[in-house]
Amino acid sequence: MQKLKNEELNRITPAEYKIARKTPIVVVLDNIRSMNNIGAAFRTADAFLVEKIILTGITAQPPHREIHKTALGATESVPWTYIEQPTQAIMALQKEDYRVLAVEQARGSTMLHNFTPQVGKYALVFGNEVKGVSDEVMQRVDGCLEIPQGGTKHSLNISVSIGIVLWDISQKLRFFS
Amino acid sequence: MQKLKNEELNRITPAEYKIARKTPIVVVLDNIRSMNNIGAAFRTADAFLVEKIILTGITAQPPHREIHKTALGATESVPWTYIEQPTQAIMALQKEDYRVLAVEQARGSTMLHNFTPQVGKYALVFGNEVKGVSDEVMQRVDGCLEIPQGGTKHSLNISVSIGIVLWDISQKLRFFS
Repeated sequence: MQKLKNEELNRITPAEYKIARKTPIVVVLDNIRSMNNIGAAFRTADAFLVEKIILTGITAQPPHREIHKTALGATESVPWTYIEQPTQAIMALQKEDYRVLAVEQARGSTMLHNFTPQVGKYALVFGNEVKGVSDEVMQRVDGCLEIPQGGTKHSLNISVSIGIVLWDISQKLRFFS
Repeated sequence: MQKLKNEELNRITPAEYKIARKTPIVVVLDNIRSMNNIGAAFRTADAFLVEKIILTGITAQPPHREIHKTALGATESVPWTYIEQPTQAIMALQKEDYRVLAVEQARGSTMLHNFTPQVGKYALVFGNEVKGVSDEVMQRVDGCLEIPQGGTKHSLNISVSIGIVLWDISQKLRFFS
């Protein structure tokens, strides 16, 4: 089979991204430590036309050389904002009628394959590489999504989790569009 | 909501992984440069109970400190082998009745959301961070899967692509089990 050249992919420009019809999802990064993970979050959010990324707590902000290495320019297309307190970000989103879901292993979480999004807007919270989503955020979210795992390790890499959840939900939301 | 403690996740041990019923998927890493990506591939393959990883070309082999940082021990659970020539790996898999699919942007590729796996075994080839799946491999694969992207960047990070494709196909294969 014949690979496509970059110019044959017909990707949109950052200016076109701003006015494109978005997937009704906001990604919240709750105290993410690794620049690699932050950069990958931007790159993945760009691919799935996410509305916005909210950086909170210790999550570093672009422009940053180490974020750029992985984001490869996606910080120019995906809108982002920084809110120091994660809980403040969550409450602001809920006021704007976002359903806020943590991606976490929790009592009573919904397994991703069983999750059917409703018509509306979602905010997805991804937590720190070691501590996960913070307890005060867990107390405020409207629910919790979990990626089922069959193997030996207790969790997936954050970048990988973001990819899986954004892919899964943006596919399911296609049915409304 | 209340997060689960690691011991509440009831993950299996590496010994249990060996005898667990696997997802009928082999992952082929074709000349992957980044230890980070190799480690993440192991960690993700572990989560979705993949049969085996085949490392080819310049892809580094465990044990390696930099792979361990991301794999976090998943190199102990997921079986792996090294075959220098990627095309030799592909042909060996085809002889064992694996359908070999490259994950790549190519003319006539199948978009992931349109892909319905058949009963049988699959091998999924992920290529180099810059060059993608090599041309000689592209000439031998049975087909090509592509993750549709709506944004500005031409591709996703390899670790993220592996996560999305393994999640998507292992979910679809559940219907056969």
